[in-house]
Amino acid sequence: MADKKLVEAITARDADFAKWYTDVVVKAQLAAYSPVRGSMYVHPYGTALWENIRADLDARFKATGHENVMLPLFIPESLLQKEKDHVEGFAPEVAWVTHGGNEKLTERLCVRPTSETLFCDYYKSIIHSWRDLPKLYNQWANVVRWEKTTRPFLRTMEFFWQEGHTMHETAEDAWAETERMLNIYADFAEQSLAIPVVKGRKTDKEKFAGAVATYTIEAMMHDGQALQAGTSHYFGDGFARAFDITFAGRDNALQYPHQTSWGMSTRIIGGIIMTHGDDSGLVLPPAVAPIQVVVLPVAQHKEGVLAAAHALKERIGAFARVHIDDSENSAGWKFAQYEMKGVPLRVEYGPRDIEQGVCVVVRRDNREKTIVPLAELETRIPELLQAVHDGLYQKALTHREERTYSAQTLAEVAEIAETRTGFIKAMWCGDLACEMRLKEEAGVTSRCIPFAQERISDTCVCCGKPAEQMLYWGKAY
Amino acid sequence: MADKKLVEAITARDADFAKWYTDVVVKAQLAAYSPVRGSMYVHPYGTALWENIRADLDARFKATGHENVMLPLFIPESLLQKEKDHVEGFAPEVAWVTHGGNEKLTERLCVRPTSETLFCDYYKSIIHSWRDLPKLYNQWANVVRWEKTTRPFLRTMEFFWQEGHTMHETAEDAWAETERMLNIYADFAEQSLAIPVVKGRKTDKEKFAGAVATYTIEAMMHDGQALQAGTSHYFGDGFARAFDITFAGRDNALQYPHQTSWGMSTRIIGGIIMTHGDDSGLVLPPAVAPIQVVVLPVAQHKEGVLAAAHALKERIGAFARVHIDDSENSAGWKFAQYEMKGVPLRVEYGPRDIEQGVCVVVRRDNREKTIVPLAELETRIPELLQAVHDGLYQKALTHREERTYSAQTLAEVAEIAETRTGFIKAMWCGDLACEMRLKEEAGVTSRCIPFAQERISDTCVCCGKPAEQMLYWGKAY
Repeated sequence: MADKKLVEAITARDADFAKWYTDVVVKAQLAAYSPVRGSMYVHPYGTALWENIRADLDARFKATGHENVMLPLFIPESLLQKEKDHVEGFAPEVAWVTHGGNEKLTERLCVRPTSETLFCDYYKSIIHSWRDLPKLYNQWANVVRWEKTTRPFLRTMEFFWQEGHTMHETAEDAWAETERMLNIYADFAEQSLAIPVVKGRKTDKEKFAGAVATYTIEAMMHDGQALQAGTSHYFGDGFARAFDITFAGRDNALQYPHQTSWGMSTRIIGGIIMTHGDDSGLVLPPAVAPIQVVVLPVAQHKEGVLAAAHALKERIGAFARVHIDDSENSAGWKFAQYEMKGVPLRVEYGPRDIEQGVCVVVRRDNREKTIVPLAELETRIPELLQAVHDGLYQKALTHREERTYSAQTLAEVAEIAETRTGFIKAMWCGDLACEMRLKEEAGVTSRCIPFAQERISDTCVCCGKPAEQMLYWGKAY
Repeated sequence: MADKKLVEAITARDADFAKWYTDVVVKAQLAAYSPVRGSMYVHPYGTALWENIRADLDARFKATGHENVMLPLFIPESLLQKEKDHVEGFAPEVAWVTHGGNEKLTERLCVRPTSETLFCDYYKSIIHSWRDLPKLYNQWANVVRWEKTTRPFLRTMEFFWQEGHTMHETAEDAWAETERMLNIYADFAEQSLAIPVVKGRKTDKEKFAGAVATYTIEAMMHDGQALQAGTSHYFGDGFARAFDITFAGRDNALQYPHQTSWGMSTRIIGGIIMTHGDDSGLVLPPAVAPIQVVVLPVAQHKEGVLAAAHALKERIGAFARVHIDDSENSAGWKFAQYEMKGVPLRVEYGPRDIEQGVCVVVRRDNREKTIVPLAELETRIPELLQAVHDGLYQKALTHREERTYSAQTLAEVAEIAETRTGFIKAMWCGDLACEMRLKEEAGVTSRCIPFAQERISDTCVCCGKPAEQMLYWGKAY
């Protein structure tokens, strides 16, 4: 059977992390390679995972007053060029539509790499008075960036994301929004994905093209590398000026609104894989797992087992996303398959269990078995799902703490970076030159200036001048 | 205030239907024109409407065993060209990406106008045995067709839709799927959108490029023109042969699977507008209305009114999508605004109502007022929402029946088409020449060969030869 391929062994995680990663993507049936450069065929399982991520985030956005809109896929070249830094950042990596039907276009259209420019044009037409503010809009969309090298989910030419774009009456309101959305991303990562994150601000070198400031959440993957998991940008009124968006203020004077944007993408699926996965495959955080509980009937040929297992499945279905596998495949094959797919809980249920009024629940994260009396099913299964979440989060946090180092000199940074992969905390004077030098000499980039500052030393790790800021440095995806 | 524009009068529906239509799109805040040729800015209200349509359809698809996937936006030219009829149908209306970043591509990529070719390539990689069948996949996506003339929702260059693509072991299974999905569209149109539809099959001239047969649901708009509201195609094994997709059958012999595809798009929003709208603006069917009930406090400056109105809103929120407008705008302005937005029920609630323990509920479709005792709120509001749905459906059905004519000769068809706009039922011999002639001489196209056949006469309305099939003819969007 074609499905048998699923349980062929995958590359060991510590032997070749990159190969292990793509093995998991393919064998857990998240996605397949397509003939379109850097684009994926996302299978039903990967799509369901993204739909759960989307529904969770969308509810958080709506609870904080945001509304969804849908803007065009194409951006006329002249519109893209209105904000100088922005076009310089994106023009080298966009796909250009030059022909429609059989005619050559008089103006090229780029396939949106992000939608600041379209939102500005849109906002210009609907913002007139301070009463129209704030505008808190978001869109779920596909975007295209012409990446040189691609990897499934982590870096694809086309990817799926949400992009929030908001306009505010004052700079203070816009700064507050920038921070609010970063906190929503951090809460989502920690509460729903069990991924601990460092919240901070990007250096000017690493910030978004056209932004005044970029906030980020940085997660550590199992191999010690960083993943930028979500960003929130404060634009000031730079785009508003470039697009001539004005509104009549409370004093009736015309002024420019203050802007933010923020995004999270299918890249986060790569983050889930690389944070929680193991040598048996994917491990999914329960909040977004397409299947939270799989019921596997034991000795299903015996009378009454299948009917009882289906009844159990129906009962669990009232409070969890549940699947039953009553196929002819062996128990061993099924165990391996649902471990590969990262299903948080496996329920084994056979003649002896039926007789005793219990089922056996096995956690994916640590393989711990629990005998659950059926009378307690409605409380114990949710508790065990929570336990999987907590276990995953704690394991990832411990891993990050064990791999977070401090350095006081460039030599120390270089020594750590050469022998280990992780986060390196070190002071920085704020000079671009020092940031560049750390990259050249130690091969690490600045991840962020964390909001939670520590004083590692009094001087810049690079130049030795007085330094007030502690940075996280590391290698990154 | 900017919002005041909302209640400026719109063009009368019967004075200029086309202008009335775009007035409603803009003034009901569904969408705005964008600087991108044939593409819209879809406002929050229009987006919420589409999200409700999407959720309703998606639940119907999932209940019948379908799963969602995500396939690439771009199709390499060589892939598009694999099926001859298909490429001939679509090549003249696709947008071509020729450059990525700063490099010219060696092979052009088209922006998908539809995804049969990608699904075939995808299915080729995952279908090996009869055990892999059926594959029942769907995707929610944006597609692009380089239309010459465009109108918001009805015909846009980029539009949003779902496209189901399925593969089956036998032709019978695929035919059954084609019909099943058409019935799902018809049920959705009638049960959720209150739009009565004619189910039928397209003539060969009107069928989808590459299909063996196209099933359609045809709705009649208020001006008597037809709107093709959803289609379901049977492909046989034509694409499978072109893409060399084979599977090992139950007898182990290699064979080709049988394919279907089916789609419904944002065009249906145009159908909702043109079926139910009136001179006061949009009228939304309750099942998909972003706001089902709007609460308008009366004399809200009086003590206790606002608090009571908010309490009422919370109570209604438990079973309906509700909004309260406690702005400073006048009652008249608010009435006009929520009529423009097509909110099915308006609840007026003031000091006298509070005293008497009632509220006044006004239906959008016929302005009927009902005094509802608060004690009966939980039963009466859902009943009234159902009454709006039933009223809309019945009105549309009566309208269609009044505008459906029968003709026995070409002269009759021409006379009807010249003086009235509607559906014309007439017999057809099956000849393309006759179909073409009706278009040339009477200006009508074949809408469908309805499943519910009637015998209007014994001979073809055009050539006079014996005819067994009754067709619906009409003008169409």
